[in-house]
Amino acid sequence: MSQELGITVDKQQDPSEWYTQVVKKAGLAKYADVKGCMIIKPYGMKLWESIKENFNTKIESTGVENAYFPLFIRESQLEKEEDIVEGFDPEVAWVTHGGDEELEERIAVRPTSESVIAPYMADEIRSHRDLPLRVNQWANVVRWEATDTRPFLRTREFLWQEGHTAHATEESADEETMLRLEQYQEVIEDHLAIPSILGYKPEHDKFPGAKYTTTIETLMPDGKSIQSGTSHQLGQHFAEAFEIEFEDEDSETQTCYTTSWGLSTRTIGALIMAHGDDDGLRLPPSVAPTQVVVVPIFQEDNQEEVMEYAENVKHQIAHSAGCACEESVRVKLDDREHRTPGYKFNEWELKGVPLRVEVGPNEMEDDTVTTVRRDNQEKEMGRDRKEFLRNIKNTLDDIQDSMYNELKDYQEENIREADSKNEILATIGKNRGYVKTRWCGKESCEEEVKDEVSAEIVVLPFQEDSKPATIQDSDEEIDGECAVCGEDAERWAYFAKNY
Amino acid sequence: MSQELGITVDKQQDPSEWYTQVVKKAGLAKYADVKGCMIIKPYGMKLWESIKENFNTKIESTGVENAYFPLFIRESQLEKEEDIVEGFDPEVAWVTHGGDEELEERIAVRPTSESVIAPYMADEIRSHRDLPLRVNQWANVVRWEATDTRPFLRTREFLWQEGHTAHATEESADEETMLRLEQYQEVIEDHLAIPSILGYKPEHDKFPGAKYTTTIETLMPDGKSIQSGTSHQLGQHFAEAFEIEFEDEDSETQTCYTTSWGLSTRTIGALIMAHGDDDGLRLPPSVAPTQVVVVPIFQEDNQEEVMEYAENVKHQIAHSAGCACEESVRVKLDDREHRTPGYKFNEWELKGVPLRVEVGPNEMEDDTVTTVRRDNQEKEMGRDRKEFLRNIKNTLDDIQDSMYNELKDYQEENIREADSKNEILATIGKNRGYVKTRWCGKESCEEEVKDEVSAEIVVLPFQEDSKPATIQDSDEEIDGECAVCGEDAERWAYFAKNY
Repeated sequence: MSQELGITVDKQQDPSEWYTQVVKKAGLAKYADVKGCMIIKPYGMKLWESIKENFNTKIESTGVENAYFPLFIRESQLEKEEDIVEGFDPEVAWVTHGGDEELEERIAVRPTSESVIAPYMADEIRSHRDLPLRVNQWANVVRWEATDTRPFLRTREFLWQEGHTAHATEESADEETMLRLEQYQEVIEDHLAIPSILGYKPEHDKFPGAKYTTTIETLMPDGKSIQSGTSHQLGQHFAEAFEIEFEDEDSETQTCYTTSWGLSTRTIGALIMAHGDDDGLRLPPSVAPTQVVVVPIFQEDNQEEVMEYAENVKHQIAHSAGCACEESVRVKLDDREHRTPGYKFNEWELKGVPLRVEVGPNEMEDDTVTTVRRDNQEKEMGRDRKEFLRNIKNTLDDIQDSMYNELKDYQEENIREADSKNEILATIGKNRGYVKTRWCGKESCEEEVKDEVSAEIVVLPFQEDSKPATIQDSDEEIDGECAVCGEDAERWAYFAKNY
Repeated sequence: MSQELGITVDKQQDPSEWYTQVVKKAGLAKYADVKGCMIIKPYGMKLWESIKENFNTKIESTGVENAYFPLFIRESQLEKEEDIVEGFDPEVAWVTHGGDEELEERIAVRPTSESVIAPYMADEIRSHRDLPLRVNQWANVVRWEATDTRPFLRTREFLWQEGHTAHATEESADEETMLRLEQYQEVIEDHLAIPSILGYKPEHDKFPGAKYTTTIETLMPDGKSIQSGTSHQLGQHFAEAFEIEFEDEDSETQTCYTTSWGLSTRTIGALIMAHGDDDGLRLPPSVAPTQVVVVPIFQEDNQEEVMEYAENVKHQIAHSAGCACEESVRVKLDDREHRTPGYKFNEWELKGVPLRVEVGPNEMEDDTVTTVRRDNQEKEMGRDRKEFLRNIKNTLDDIQDSMYNELKDYQEENIREADSKNEILATIGKNRGYVKTRWCGKESCEEEVKDEVSAEIVVLPFQEDSKPATIQDSDEEIDGECAVCGEDAERWAYFAKNY
C-alpha cells in the first residue's frame, strides 16, 4: 500500500496516532488555521449529514420543530443563569469589537444556548395549550478549550443540535428527557452500530442547573468510555430564573419544567474509533456515504467490455430496491484509469466502504461478481450476479448486524465487577473497560478512586441491558455496601477512563 | 380579526411597518437580545430549510460537495487577501479573548470564507484530475452592519451557503459562474415563484477581487430591487494570492481559476415582500410548509361527525399522491376546539397557507368540500370531494403559476426606458421599478444620477427575458449613446432603488 494511503501504525498499540492518520487519510477532517478548530471535509460532512438526518427525522416525528438562535449572547444575559456561567465562563470566546468600535458590553460566542432559548420560551408560552413547547437547533458552538484538541473528539468549535422543551408537569419533562435519550440510543446503536450503556451522571457531575443528567456511554477499543449524547431534566431551575410560566386550566400562573439535550460531531469521533481497524475506517452500511464500490479489473485488450459489464452491475445495484419508493443502494463505480485496482482496493478500504464488488474478465464471462466485505475481509469469488443483486440488501444488513455484535461482545467482556477499593484499582490497572461496583452516592468515594487512577464514574446505569422503561428505578435493589466506604450502597456505578 | 392576528397597516402605504408586522405575527422571526441579530422561529426556519433543500439538491447533482469551514479566521489570514479586507474590515466582529486570556492575535468571526477556503483548495489540488474542485458550506456568517437591520433583509448574523470552486480553464470557471446563477434563478422563479432579472453588476460594484460579479435581481412591490443571489467569477486573483495551482497534463504547474457564489436568508425577506398582502403572508405551494389546511365548522350537536369527516378529508389529501414514491401534499387539520373557524381562517391567511378547505355539516351531507385560495381569495363551495382530491395537485400548481405570473406582469410593467439624464430622474421620481437606459460604462455617469436620487445601477442584464445561454454577450449591439454623457453606449443598464 502506498505511504500516502496506508495507516502506518497499529490501532491497538498507538490508538492516538492511528486516529489522527485515519481522520486525515480517509479525508474526514483537517486542522484549521485557528488552533483547535477543524475543517470538516466532504467525506466527514456526509457522515454528519447522515447522523443529522437520522436524528432529525426522529425528533420531527415526535413534535420537535427546528429554529435558529443567535450566535451571540450578551455577557449580562449569559450571567443571568449563574450556574451556566460557572460551568462555562472559562471556555467562552469573547467578541469585544464590532468593526473599528469597541462594544459597550462584550458578547459571548455561544457555548450553548440555554440563556437565549429560555427567554424565548418564556415569551412564546402563554397557556397550558402551548405546552409542551419543543424547539431544536442545528448549530455551531464554541468552547475555548485549553486542553489538547482533536478533530471531532474535542474541538473549540463544533457542530451539534441542542433541543429545548418546556412542560406543564414534571412527569412530562421526565418522559421527554428519556424519549430523547432513547432516540440517541437509536442513532448510536441502530444507525452507527455501536452498543451503548444508558444511565445517569452522578449528582456532582450533572449539567450545571439540571435536576438530573442522563448520558449515553459507549466503550471505545482503547478501553475508554465516550459520552455520545446527553439529555437533561432541568426541573424548574431555568424556568424560575427566566420566568417560563403558563396559565393552567384554572387560569392560575404556574412555572414550567424544562429539558435540554444535545448530540454533537463528537459522535463521528466515536464512530471512527469504534469500528476502525489497521486498514482505516470501517463504516456500517446505514451511515456509509458509499455502501458499495464497484472496481473493474481490466487489461488494455478487454477494457471496453469489462467497463461495460461494470457499469451494468453498478446500475443494477443502484436500482436493486424493490420499488422506486424504497431507498436505493448507494453505489459508486471507480472508473479512474490512472489508478490500479490494488490502489483502489486500499483507498476504499481506508474510507471504510462496507462492500467491494470486483469485476474482471472472468466475472464478465461467467456473469458473476466477486465481493469483499470490509467488516471481516470475507471474499466470495464468482457469485452469480442475479443472486448477488437479489441479496444485496440482506448482505448490507448482515454487515450492519455483525459490526454491532462484534462491539456488543467486546463491551460485555469488558464490564468487570469489583467489591472493594483495591479491587477497583487493580481491575482498572489490569484491564480496559468498565468496572461495575456498588456505590454509596458520595463524591468523596469516587474521589478516592480518582486520586489513584485516572478513572471516574462515567454512568449510573438504569438497568442492565435494557432500555429505560421508566426513570423511576432508584428503588432498584442494591444488596450490599459501597465498595469504597462500606456504607449502604445506593446504586451500581461504572468506573472508567473516559474522553 | 383580532388585533393579535391582524396586520394593522396597508402594505402599499407603509411597506416597512407592514413587513415588520408580518414577520412578527406570522411567526417567522423575532429580534434577538443582541442588536441586529434575529431568532428564526420554526415557521421561518421551515422556509429556509425548504430553500436549502431545493438548492442543495441542485448543486449536489452537479458535482458540488458540502463541507464545513471554521467560524474563526485569524486577522493575518483574513488580511492575506487585501481586497477582501478592504471590502469587509469595517464590518468584522472581532474575538479578542478566549476565556480569561487575551489572544495573541485577534480573530475574526467569518464575514465570508474565501480566505479559509482558498488555502484549503490550494492544499487539496495536486493535478488536473482534481479539477474542477467544488465545495459548498451552509453556515452562519457575521457582518457587523452599522445601519438599520431588519429580520432576514439585513441582519448582523445570517445564514447562507457559500460555494467555492477551482478550475483548470477560464472557460470552465465562466460556465460554473453561470450554472450557479441559473440554479439560483430556478430557486427564485420556480420554487419561490418570483420572476427575476439576471445580469452583471457594474465593474465598480463587483465583489472585491472578482473578475466579474453576476446577480439575480427581483423587483419588490415597493418598487425597489433586491439582490437574491450572486455568483462571482474570481479569475486568477485569489488563486494567485493563495497559490491554488495544479499540474497540467504536461506536468507543468498552472494557476487555477476560481468562482464563488452565495444565497442567504435574505431570500426569505424577498419572499415575504414579493407575495404578501394586507392579510399577511402568501406562500407559493412549492415552498409552503403547509400547503392545505382543513378547517372543520361544527356546532356542539354535530361536532363528532364533522370532525370525523374532516379527518377523512385530511387523510385523503395527505395520500392524494398517485404512488407512495410521489411527494404527498403537506396538509394540516386545525382541530383546535378553543378557536372559532373565523379565527382559524385569519390565522392561516396570515401564515399564507395556499389553500383552505372548509368542511361543515353541509359539506359532510353532500360529500363535498368548500375551498378558498389564498392567492386570489377565490372561494368554491360544494365541490365534489372526489373531483377535488383528483385535482388537488393541479390546483396547487395553478396557484404557483398564478402567483408567478402576477409578479411577472408587475415586473414587466415597471421597466421603463429613458434616454437622457433628466428622463431617468423624472422616471425614477414618478414611478416604482427599473429605469432601463443606455450606459457608457463609466461610474461617473452612474454617480450623476445617484447624486440626485437614491437610485443606482443594480444590474446590467444579459439579454432581455432570457436565461444567459452564454456570458459572451458583451458584443450585444447597443445602438445609441449613454443617456447621461452622450458618449457611445456600451450596455443596457437598469437603474433602481434597492435594498
